[in-house]
Amino acid sequence: MPEFVRQIPDGDNRERMMCPDCGHIAYENPKVVVGAVVMEGSRVLLCRRAIEPRRGFWTLPAGYLELGETVEEGAAREAQEEANAMIELDGLLAVYSVARIGQVQLIYRARFAGPPAFSPGPESLDVRLFDWEDIPWAEIAFPTVHWALNAWRQLGDHAGHTPLGSPATNPVSDPRGTARIDISHEERPT
Amino acid sequence: MPEFVRQIPDGDNRERMMCPDCGHIAYENPKVVVGAVVMEGSRVLLCRRAIEPRRGFWTLPAGYLELGETVEEGAAREAQEEANAMIELDGLLAVYSVARIGQVQLIYRARFAGPPAFSPGPESLDVRLFDWEDIPWAEIAFPTVHWALNAWRQLGDHAGHTPLGSPATNPVSDPRGTARIDISHEERPT
Repeated sequence: MPEFVRQIPDGDNRERMMCPDCGHIAYENPKVVVGAVVMEGSRVLLCRRAIEPRRGFWTLPAGYLELGETVEEGAAREAQEEANAMIELDGLLAVYSVARIGQVQLIYRARFAGPPAFSPGPESLDVRLFDWEDIPWAEIAFPTVHWALNAWRQLGDHAGHTPLGSPATNPVSDPRGTARIDISHEERPT
Repeated sequence: MPEFVRQIPDGDNRERMMCPDCGHIAYENPKVVVGAVVMEGSRVLLCRRAIEPRRGFWTLPAGYLELGETVEEGAAREAQEEANAMIELDGLLAVYSVARIGQVQLIYRARFAGPPAFSPGPESLDVRLFDWEDIPWAEIAFPTVHWALNAWRQLGDHAGHTPLGSPATNPVSDPRGTARIDISHEERPT
């Protein structure tokens, strides 16, 4: 079997990985990440990662959307897998493009579907509810977790009674998800 | 080179395409489609497809997000490629899951960036602005085009002065994007 080569197919306008013999094109596509800011009163649910990258750091329950599920189903599944939490989404909080690594992230606002119950799934070392002032900002796994937590905070009503408006997008200071975000104990400006 | 087999990798919970020799996993992921309802006064821009599937049918300027671009950049690029139109997005109109075919669609509301100018790109036979009552409903290419046009219409202010709220999602009557949508000359109920 021949090795794939990088070339521009007929009728296309950018390079693809192609088989030089049969012309088969292996498209490389951005991936969809779905996740949620799960609220319990004024607290939010974070998971401490048991896997690389960023093992030991805190993140929102989130992961790759699977074939055959809706974005909403995927976000709920991730909370179940990573935090053994049954959640109900109440709307789309943010859409982020992390173009640097080919990701689109859809982050929902959510609540527990019943009384709050959670525990670490196989990919988590720990799962906890944090008050805003107790969030371990220096140990947050990814820039988009900062962005989403701040987008949630900026709604003003931390218990989630404020209807969601147009979802947040990449911060202007980092429009393509290409730059590192400063880690700070302060609430970051928009 | 051995043929890939479908099996559940260690530590995973669903079948993947795997090389039985080296364990390489070829993940199959949902794809992101980005597009726009481009408004000019009370009219919307539609493109008549020059390619399969649904050649000859009308669609919104939309297509697959590419690696390295943001969702907003992708939606603008598609309008340029399919309609030679320079557009400005003003927000996210709808997020649809077409789980049946592994797609997530992000549809924006947009305007022309300058005086309206458009013409068919290589993938379009024709490009036109339509008043609502003139939209060729029987010749619309995809269910999500119906959904997005109706989501735009239901904002009430067709010229786009109404701020966008939370984006529309799959119609309740077709929550997974699995059923065929009735084609009708009437405005479809939510």
